[in-house]
Amino acid sequence: MTDLSRFAINQITTKNWSLRQAVDGYARQGVGGIAVWMNYLDDAGVKRGARMIRDAGLFVPSLCTSAWTNLADPTQFQASLDENRRRIDAAAEIGAGCLVVVPGGLAAGERDLVAARLRVREGLEALLPHALGAGVKLGLEPLHPMYAGDRSCLNSFAQCLALCDDLGMGTGIVADVYHCWWDPEFAAGLKQAGPRRILTFHLCDWLVPTRDVYQDRGMVGDGVIDFAFYRALLDEIAYDGPFEIELFSRLDWWERDGDETVRIAVERCGPLVAQRSA
Amino acid sequence: MTDLSRFAINQITTKNWSLRQAVDGYARQGVGGIAVWMNYLDDAGVKRGARMIRDAGLFVPSLCTSAWTNLADPTQFQASLDENRRRIDAAAEIGAGCLVVVPGGLAAGERDLVAARLRVREGLEALLPHALGAGVKLGLEPLHPMYAGDRSCLNSFAQCLALCDDLGMGTGIVADVYHCWWDPEFAAGLKQAGPRRILTFHLCDWLVPTRDVYQDRGMVGDGVIDFAFYRALLDEIAYDGPFEIELFSRLDWWERDGDETVRIAVERCGPLVAQRSA
Repeated sequence: MTDLSRFAINQITTKNWSLRQAVDGYARQGVGGIAVWMNYLDDAGVKRGARMIRDAGLFVPSLCTSAWTNLADPTQFQASLDENRRRIDAAAEIGAGCLVVVPGGLAAGERDLVAARLRVREGLEALLPHALGAGVKLGLEPLHPMYAGDRSCLNSFAQCLALCDDLGMGTGIVADVYHCWWDPEFAAGLKQAGPRRILTFHLCDWLVPTRDVYQDRGMVGDGVIDFAFYRALLDEIAYDGPFEIELFSRLDWWERDGDETVRIAVERCGPLVAQRSA
Repeated sequence: MTDLSRFAINQITTKNWSLRQAVDGYARQGVGGIAVWMNYLDDAGVKRGARMIRDAGLFVPSLCTSAWTNLADPTQFQASLDENRRRIDAAAEIGAGCLVVVPGGLAAGERDLVAARLRVREGLEALLPHALGAGVKLGLEPLHPMYAGDRSCLNSFAQCLALCDDLGMGTGIVADVYHCWWDPEFAAGLKQAGPRRILTFHLCDWLVPTRDVYQDRGMVGDGVIDFAFYRALLDEIAYDGPFEIELFSRLDWWERDGDETVRIAVERCGPLVAQRSA
């Protein structure tokens, strides 16, 4: 039997399922954990959702995502920090290891990426005391460069790792092979980060061709990413954290029945996520 | 009157025009140069095309592109080198400063990006003597990371600059702000490269949203890129080479009349490309 104790499904993968359905659907097929999205958790109610997950015995690698802080207006910026403090508390409530930071790209009408990145840094600095108090890490996720304009101005592993270095305790990296596989410095970056700063490792394949910039990500094995290479590298640096599959797939997987998606995710990821004997 | 002496249009921008039409259409509106694509040049005949361009008084910053060398089969790999030698000769014939290197991503069925990149390097090493003999530089173009799977495994400025360092004389960088604008290290890379290693500078805007991974690139001014910032930076490092607009735009500009595209390209780029008084 496949060991799925380190394996979680990120619930956006089964987009049409509520938190209740996802918790039941993942547990039913032996998946160890669930990465939770804030909107589904709000739908369920944070305390009720937390109980649901605990009762099912699932671990929670992460809560997705931070509210965007790419806001040039100071009042809106402060409001987004308050919303993020609420999300940090929600992450603590469900036992999530981290809140995944996806801060937005440029503000509306903005062309200054340097300014946007400085604002993101300011936001993280402002949130850090609250995160430390709650025992929830801020998980910086390098997003693919094709999202720099509209989704996140954190776009390379090296950039995020340097930011973690500066911010120190209470931060770490959410590494997603879909976003970073192209990066000639990705493997070196993982080694440099080391096992403690990699908070969770996302699995998702790059399809050729990619038909949609945002929502055509591939099931593990359907694209061109060498997952075995990354698993070996993670073992080499003694990473013992979670593996999470996360699919944005308007054109394929979101159209399917959740049970089928989970079944195939387990089939494909099983060999990649098992605990190795030391 | 706008100074367009350093300004070229890359002829893929007017995709429906033949070389003859592009040469006439660009010259008619005072554009200084034309970046040529091999397929149009072959259609015209290399010698005839060269004469056409010379007679119109246009400069040629580059010939696009190298034949793909991402071929795992040794016979096909050698054949691609021969084709590339032919293209180097064609570049020399039309007075192009460089042959733009777009070597392909992964080979069919391949998942090993490191191997693909090594093969590209081998190919460049094999071509370098011929390029040096012909007086044509191999212009390494960092392509956006979203093309790593299928179009080019050269995906960051730093990666290409390191390759130029290794290969030495006869190589340089084709810098395209569309491909690199997201890169936190792009500005530093341009400074490090210096004016002599930047062979030509491509202008093209990043649209939000981007509706197509390959062919939805924006007219200068329609997207989120801060072109004035890059022009100032290039002046600061004393770059005095060409500026080239290059649009892949199935959804917009390729549908328009070439004269209109050229007119608007001149309007938008004019202020960005003029020679500054020293």
